[in-house]
Amino acid sequence: MNFCSKCGANVSLIVPPGDHKERFVCDECTHIHYVNPRVVSGCLPIFEDKVLLCKRAIEPRYGFWTLPAGYLENGETIADGAARETREEANAQAIDLQLYTVFSLPHISQIYMFFLSRLEKEEFSCGEESLDVKLFLESEIPWDSLSFPVVTQTLELYFEDRKNRNYPVRYIDLHFKRKS
Amino acid sequence: MNFCSKCGANVSLIVPPGDHKERFVCDECTHIHYVNPRVVSGCLPIFEDKVLLCKRAIEPRYGFWTLPAGYLENGETIADGAARETREEANAQAIDLQLYTVFSLPHISQIYMFFLSRLEKEEFSCGEESLDVKLFLESEIPWDSLSFPVVTQTLELYFEDRKNRNYPVRYIDLHFKRKS
Repeated sequence: MNFCSKCGANVSLIVPPGDHKERFVCDECTHIHYVNPRVVSGCLPIFEDKVLLCKRAIEPRYGFWTLPAGYLENGETIADGAARETREEANAQAIDLQLYTVFSLPHISQIYMFFLSRLEKEEFSCGEESLDVKLFLESEIPWDSLSFPVVTQTLELYFEDRKNRNYPVRYIDLHFKRKS
Repeated sequence: MNFCSKCGANVSLIVPPGDHKERFVCDECTHIHYVNPRVVSGCLPIFEDKVLLCKRAIEPRYGFWTLPAGYLENGETIADGAARETREEANAQAIDLQLYTVFSLPHISQIYMFFLSRLEKEEFSCGEESLDVKLFLESEIPWDSLSFPVVTQTLELYFEDRKNRNYPVRYIDLHFKRKS
């Protein structure tokens, strides 16, 4: 951030009065520009005994398999965002969404939230951000070609929980160093 | 938003190519400025059979009772943010945090997440944003003077769940019209 988005003047990185962290503050209008973590929401879509995965057509992790997920938009609920991403990336209709995994990734200031869900019909196809969309049995999951640790962990938890048919919500902090 | 925070030029509200929503896009450097929902995290701090509440010293809802909570910061986990807010608003040390309620508030593009937690000691006092900090028995909760529906619902769920000593995570969408 170099300029105030309100008035166009220069900003300085300072600790505002009464605050404890550095913020970008406008030199002219004194507006404080807070920057906060972003939320990514997605689905773990199930059809019969299979899981729907999408092969990424975008960076990062182009060509790796992922659960449909993306940045939550203003004005939508977390569940609505997860269902929208499933429509956009897999042209699939996720129903019966229930919150399943919540990850904090402080190193990249992101939060991931996955909803366990069902596909009403075996209908799906590639959205713009997908090279391929497929249903996988547990034995077919491409564990070495998954996109992100949050996807791997969510799938591992699901197949473990499926043995007991009980899917409690999990909150998990993931600490990684950012690759330079 | 009136100016690009990167280059200082004017921005226009347009739908970028390949997108489906209007965004502020810089007329000069073409940077797309996404705006996303913010996360508020907080604690439901328990000491023995009592709940810790703070009386707000700030707007909105000045003078109403609330659970310690505030905007999540970049670089911290959701749980760390909840514990930090409890320190800042109540000078209290919350331990054993477990995720309890997750609220989507799409009308104000906010997410609230409360963690059930314990106070190790009966030690607390007013932080800068609190007029008063007190422990309340269930029978003493000031139901008519609570700050926000997310606080009321979290407390209602807690006292209900306490009967069974089982506190499953709840995901709740709250739809309200914004007051003008």
